[in-house]
Amino acid sequence: MKLTGNSLVAGKWLRGSDKIFSAIDPTLNCTLAHETYNATTELVDLAIAEANQAFIDFSQLSVERRALFLRTIGKNILNLGEQLIAVVHQETGLPKNRIVTERARTIHQLSLYAEQIESQEYLAVLSPAEPERKPQAKPDLRLGYVPLGVVGVFAASNFPLAYSTAGGDTASALAAGCCVVMKAHSSHPATSELVALAILDAIKACNIPKGVFSLIQGENYELSTRIVKHQFIKAIGFTGSERVGMILQRQVYEREEPIPFYGELGSVNPQFILSGKLIEQPKALAQLFVDSLTLGQGQFCTSPGVWVIMNDEQESYNKFINEAAYLVRETEAGVMLTPDIAQDYQTAVNKVKQINGVNVLAKGRVGSKEHLCAPTLFETDSNTFLNTVELGQEIFGSCAIIVACTTFEDVIKVVGSLKGNLSASIHANTMDRKLVTRLSQLLIHKVGRLIYNQMSTGVEVCAAMNHGGPFPASTNIRSTSVGNEAIKRFQRPICYQNMPEEFLPLNLHNC
Amino acid sequence: MKLTGNSLVAGKWLRGSDKIFSAIDPTLNCTLAHETYNATTELVDLAIAEANQAFIDFSQLSVERRALFLRTIGKNILNLGEQLIAVVHQETGLPKNRIVTERARTIHQLSLYAEQIESQEYLAVLSPAEPERKPQAKPDLRLGYVPLGVVGVFAASNFPLAYSTAGGDTASALAAGCCVVMKAHSSHPATSELVALAILDAIKACNIPKGVFSLIQGENYELSTRIVKHQFIKAIGFTGSERVGMILQRQVYEREEPIPFYGELGSVNPQFILSGKLIEQPKALAQLFVDSLTLGQGQFCTSPGVWVIMNDEQESYNKFINEAAYLVRETEAGVMLTPDIAQDYQTAVNKVKQINGVNVLAKGRVGSKEHLCAPTLFETDSNTFLNTVELGQEIFGSCAIIVACTTFEDVIKVVGSLKGNLSASIHANTMDRKLVTRLSQLLIHKVGRLIYNQMSTGVEVCAAMNHGGPFPASTNIRSTSVGNEAIKRFQRPICYQNMPEEFLPLNLHNC
Repeated sequence: MKLTGNSLVAGKWLRGSDKIFSAIDPTLNCTLAHETYNATTELVDLAIAEANQAFIDFSQLSVERRALFLRTIGKNILNLGEQLIAVVHQETGLPKNRIVTERARTIHQLSLYAEQIESQEYLAVLSPAEPERKPQAKPDLRLGYVPLGVVGVFAASNFPLAYSTAGGDTASALAAGCCVVMKAHSSHPATSELVALAILDAIKACNIPKGVFSLIQGENYELSTRIVKHQFIKAIGFTGSERVGMILQRQVYEREEPIPFYGELGSVNPQFILSGKLIEQPKALAQLFVDSLTLGQGQFCTSPGVWVIMNDEQESYNKFINEAAYLVRETEAGVMLTPDIAQDYQTAVNKVKQINGVNVLAKGRVGSKEHLCAPTLFETDSNTFLNTVELGQEIFGSCAIIVACTTFEDVIKVVGSLKGNLSASIHANTMDRKLVTRLSQLLIHKVGRLIYNQMSTGVEVCAAMNHGGPFPASTNIRSTSVGNEAIKRFQRPICYQNMPEEFLPLNLHNC
Repeated sequence: MKLTGNSLVAGKWLRGSDKIFSAIDPTLNCTLAHETYNATTELVDLAIAEANQAFIDFSQLSVERRALFLRTIGKNILNLGEQLIAVVHQETGLPKNRIVTERARTIHQLSLYAEQIESQEYLAVLSPAEPERKPQAKPDLRLGYVPLGVVGVFAASNFPLAYSTAGGDTASALAAGCCVVMKAHSSHPATSELVALAILDAIKACNIPKGVFSLIQGENYELSTRIVKHQFIKAIGFTGSERVGMILQRQVYEREEPIPFYGELGSVNPQFILSGKLIEQPKALAQLFVDSLTLGQGQFCTSPGVWVIMNDEQESYNKFINEAAYLVRETEAGVMLTPDIAQDYQTAVNKVKQINGVNVLAKGRVGSKEHLCAPTLFETDSNTFLNTVELGQEIFGSCAIIVACTTFEDVIKVVGSLKGNLSASIHANTMDRKLVTRLSQLLIHKVGRLIYNQMSTGVEVCAAMNHGGPFPASTNIRSTSVGNEAIKRFQRPICYQNMPEEFLPLNLHNC
């Protein structure tokens, strides 16, 4: 498939400006030959106007046709075959097996949302009329949902497929009946174009209005601002850093019409090890923790960044520490998604090193290539942690800090100091039962997912998942960006009163 | 019951400052003797700190105890008896039968939310483990909800019981497991104190932590700002004008931590009459419309303020117009809730009078008492309406403007120009069928409730109700402030992964 380097605007590949940009191959640390044209704000306006034009028609398609559209996108992504895998690898440095898994997840998400809108069960609340009720007759009331309109979606660097062009935000917005204007991530423009092509082919095959999806290429913040502030944009989906997320959030605040901003901004995903569990299996825990920490170079929003460990039983604590340090030292440095991300990682790690009371426990094997990043494990005590705000901040990559707590009250203080997180895990056994009860009662107010004896990495895509949490994990704490409930972000409730069946959506008809 | 004029802070009646204020009896147009002390920001801080302290304990009460607490509040409100009715009447000018109805609704809301949390059905999504799944085992996942924390609630002037101290926002927040810091409306301080007393008695009777509810009295904006910006406040419920609502919304934006702001800011609730229906019963429609317009002096957020009527059949249109004008002229001027509201009404009506192309169709009977307000009916054509932004803005009170449309395309243009509304009604018969289809398809994107052949006034409190809608009807378009779903505003999802049953909330246990 030959790539144009253009943006996709309502079915047409348009150039926008003559200003080009190129992605970097992070494995080889060199600029890729493929050139992409920066879109313009005029192109953004056109994409949004076309989406707005297409919205009423698209939102009224039968759920069967919308479901078919989603599944066809999935099929077309699979049909991109080896070219897609190769391009993603080139642009992100992710290993090919990981890319294959992520592709499968992306297709699964599309078909999950297709199934969900087909079943429609979650949509109907019927409250029949009671014409004889005194003092006043009760009208027939039916609660349904309407799609919000045009949704702006921002692609994530760390999920080039599952949270980019046809990723979770796009899939759930389309499933809801919304049109999507996608801002591609500038670190993987060729990947984005390939997937947009898969969407365009599905649009054609399913005879869907072309304005339903546009892909804006560019590395210019102006384009993002234009999307966020446009009057026709009715919701925003974003996955990325707290810094960029809050820039967009503030732009949303400047709008005349408030709209929901679904920003998933990351998290330190604290892991708690209680004494009973630590005594039982210190070495196995160390293996579990380091595996999770170093998975995918720690480039997950669920990477475990803070390990809160009881050290009242010194021998077991030391066993854990020594084993974890050993395993980290044995781990090779690896490729990060972009040179900027690698640089940010190194800078953040160096900052932590200089904090009084923080000890570098272990660093992975640094190869000869300087652009690779090694995992890092720090250790500190709970007092230092509580007195140093920086230690509670996320470092994107394979870096964790162990917070040693002499007493359970220290653990509780650490919990009190935590900001909102996507997840936390409690590692415990029956000896720890009472403490688990107390810890859970506090942790539920700090996280979107509470885990027992498992690591936080690995997010199941299903109806019971919640991938969100108190700020800054999420800017919209009542929403999840993963799983069935994600669709609801792009719909709002509507009540039909006394409405004849012929004017009602099918799912609100009498059974 | 003797009133203190103080604020209620976590079980204690505290004065705050020595600065007093008094409410006005709008019927007699005189200042009431009862004096209330303005709270201070220190008192607000104390109330919020106590609420935050009480939160973990209160949120962990069994649903049975929380339900009992809600029902006890309702019982205590009823037990306030005639004193409450008399005080509300004095402070608001509302007729006693309306107050009795509103009291019943308030008690119904409390018991509805009690029932809902007892049933708990809506809470559980269980997704069992699949340990044998390849390539990876699937963990056990259970989706539940946690209360947000301390909620700030602002009372409404037009619902001194149902959307004030123990009104819908308070009831749904308490049902969700949140603590409430309530800013009383300064137009009905004695009403607020009486109801707060009912809540305090319920707190004592049910042995609930006293910090769970505080009532802040005052007419000082500083108190509101303090509530909205406080770090322990995790959500805001507000019912009131767009002007005040947007002041609070902007203060929410200035917070470090974004929180949901549930502002229900009102609406013009457009009524559409299509030709078939108009021809069928012009006079009966006029009666229906004027009854709804003049109900409770039009002091409802669902009062019908814009009537869009096809006038292609001139004779029926004239019959409607003449009858409606006659009925409005026959209606006596009445008491509005406060002198400020009455003044705002008169000013807004006078402004509309001066707009070119707007015709005063009828004005109600102005009595000798100048502080009373007469209903007003204006008429204009669709072009004038489309070209005059002011005509699309809500006038709080019994004022409506008829927008005459020569063609259905004019109707569609009027729909396009509408901002978000709580509701809209379509008045039609089988002759209008095709037009209803098209009109509904567009109106669903402008309203939170779409009604057929009924007026918008009267909001049923039930599971299928939605009382919200696109901005400015609501600042948080995915939420309703009336009905069962209102509880969800004050909870967020949480996923429990691999968690033993003993640490799970009861509703997430295996059946």
